[in-house]
Amino acid sequence: MLFIVNVEAAIYKGDKWLFIKRSELEEHAAGELSLVGGKVDKEGTKENILEATIRREVWEEVGVELQSTLHYVHSTSFIADDGTHVVDIVFLAEYKSGEAHAKSVEEVGAVYWLPAEDILNDEKAPDYFKDSIKRAVELKVSLSNVVIES
Amino acid sequence: MLFIVNVEAAIYKGDKWLFIKRSELEEHAAGELSLVGGKVDKEGTKENILEATIRREVWEEVGVELQSTLHYVHSTSFIADDGTHVVDIVFLAEYKSGEAHAKSVEEVGAVYWLPAEDILNDEKAPDYFKDSIKRAVELKVSLSNVVIES
Repeated sequence: MLFIVNVEAAIYKGDKWLFIKRSELEEHAAGELSLVGGKVDKEGTKENILEATIRREVWEEVGVELQSTLHYVHSTSFIADDGTHVVDIVFLAEYKSGEAHAKSVEEVGAVYWLPAEDILNDEKAPDYFKDSIKRAVELKVSLSNVVIES
Repeated sequence: MLFIVNVEAAIYKGDKWLFIKRSELEEHAAGELSLVGGKVDKEGTKENILEATIRREVWEEVGVELQSTLHYVHSTSFIADDGTHVVDIVFLAEYKSGEAHAKSVEEVGAVYWLPAEDILNDEKAPDYFKDSIKRAVELKVSLSNVVIES
């Protein structure tokens, strides 16, 4: 029962979301639009391993830093093309600093700040990708309506 | 970079929390107090794999059903005694129904509904266990102070 653990960040800045075109060099889903993310590495005992992986991957791939709080969106499992079982976990993240660019050319072909609707209305975008974005948008909206009573 | 993915539920009913004494038959941490949980199985393509695993494990181990919303608490990685790398993910869950009991005798020695303070003040309880409970309690408190504006 061993898995690759993959994390993805739905990163927003105002009303725009950060998407990448995956590099043509990638083994999985080469050239497709996706969220930024990557695999959890073996780091022994580590607190906040999922969040730490997201921050590392986002920095390495697109040169962006995120605000301190990440919000869990959802999790899915699937079987990759090579037969590996994957647990994929998506977090909502707010942009903090950095100029988004294709910092890792092995992984990222291009970066885009787009309204979520551009993906949700795209007939060619895969359902799992639309589902993650839809859930991230819903969570962002619900968090913006939250008031903490003291 | 393959991991066991383990999920744990911090289950509350009012001011009490559900803890189990792990069975003496368990390979890992036999006889110790812990949260209810277990490993993600290979199920192919599945939505909400972490939440589905928690509901299955809680039902199988202690015969309890949970309310519909689970809240992500935190994630850690560690290396098990046999050298396997583990990603462990804790969710906050509210009790819904069922009489908690040691339904799986292979995994559960006894069940307890206790105030969180009983664990937090226990000098013998391991730090990782206290940390999960402390974070779950804080999340429960913050959620109880939330008002959704419409």
